[in-house]
Amino acid sequence: MLAEMNKSQLEIVEAAADCFANYGADAVSIDDIARHLNATKGRIYHHFRSKSELLCAVRMRSVSLMYDQIAPIVARASDPLDAMKQMAFTHVQLILGHHSYHRVVSEDFRVFFNRSTTPDERRQIEEIIEKRTAYEELFRGVIQKGMDSGVFAKRPISLTVHSLITLLNSPSIWYSPRPGQTQDDRDAIAHDLAAMALGALGVKV
Amino acid sequence: MLAEMNKSQLEIVEAAADCFANYGADAVSIDDIARHLNATKGRIYHHFRSKSELLCAVRMRSVSLMYDQIAPIVARASDPLDAMKQMAFTHVQLILGHHSYHRVVSEDFRVFFNRSTTPDERRQIEEIIEKRTAYEELFRGVIQKGMDSGVFAKRPISLTVHSLITLLNSPSIWYSPRPGQTQDDRDAIAHDLAAMALGALGVKV
Repeated sequence: MLAEMNKSQLEIVEAAADCFANYGADAVSIDDIARHLNATKGRIYHHFRSKSELLCAVRMRSVSLMYDQIAPIVARASDPLDAMKQMAFTHVQLILGHHSYHRVVSEDFRVFFNRSTTPDERRQIEEIIEKRTAYEELFRGVIQKGMDSGVFAKRPISLTVHSLITLLNSPSIWYSPRPGQTQDDRDAIAHDLAAMALGALGVKV
Repeated sequence: MLAEMNKSQLEIVEAAADCFANYGADAVSIDDIARHLNATKGRIYHHFRSKSELLCAVRMRSVSLMYDQIAPIVARASDPLDAMKQMAFTHVQLILGHHSYHRVVSEDFRVFFNRSTTPDERRQIEEIIEKRTAYEELFRGVIQKGMDSGVFAKRPISLTVHSLITLLNSPSIWYSPRPGQTQDDRDAIAHDLAAMALGALGVKV
């Protein structure tokens, strides 16, 4: 269910992401999401059994959006430096373009795990974590190759991967879309952050 | 009240930080904190009126710990590069050394603001935000000077400050203290992250 969504489901998930991002997942009810969507609760419950299922759908969509764009870049790029330049830029672009999603995702899973969860919820959470790990592996692979070939500074790989992804995720915390902001504005932000990421990897930029 | 604490209050705040960091603030009750402290609820209520007051105390202590160490570095350092090297290293050291505190702080204030808060709570939150802003200003000042003098790459100042601080805060998310971990291990992490931060600022490292 998490992997493919039809148009009606996607609309609900978009509305849920907006609500969660603006008010925090804890504070949002299915009622709030229905109101935001200008729909009935029934329409939401037709597709999603619970708020936690919606939260899973939001998280899954956010990581899938990233994975589906970045994986082809890794497959196509000629070398680690070329790959990382495109990966960093595209990652930030996706954060800026799907801001609500990533705002939600930057909250972690502890809350989930501390609650009583159903087997079904656990399965969904595991699926999301698996996808996130696969995404992280894309970065790990490119960074390791770049370290091996000497274009990136040699540092502990896990520290490097985690702090680099945190840097690239940072607009999910500090960026708020403003009215009138254009694609050029977002490009400029992505460009600057990609340059900072490459600098952090020890590339002379 | 937030600024100075006696030994008994500090013990309670440390216990609260541990509990909040491990289980998420929402899931923790005053009872849990009392149990963790091996004390009675009465001892906690003697000093703090509510969980939200404890949460404020944890947040205030975390930013004060940072501010009190970094401000003298800024005052003393001979130039922006020298200042930033020490600031970045010390910031990461403090995150690693007070891990519970910063884990709590990396959660944001939205939840707070969406709840009904008392005037007293609002005042405390404002005090914390003020202190955080003052801390951020230390970084902003040094980075601006470094950009002006050409040792740091010229990029939009707010983007640079926010993403740099996010990078330096990143161990609060991915670092877990392990048994047997030494000061040397923490120094190595702080050293690597400081090098990444300087690289991100465009310093050739």
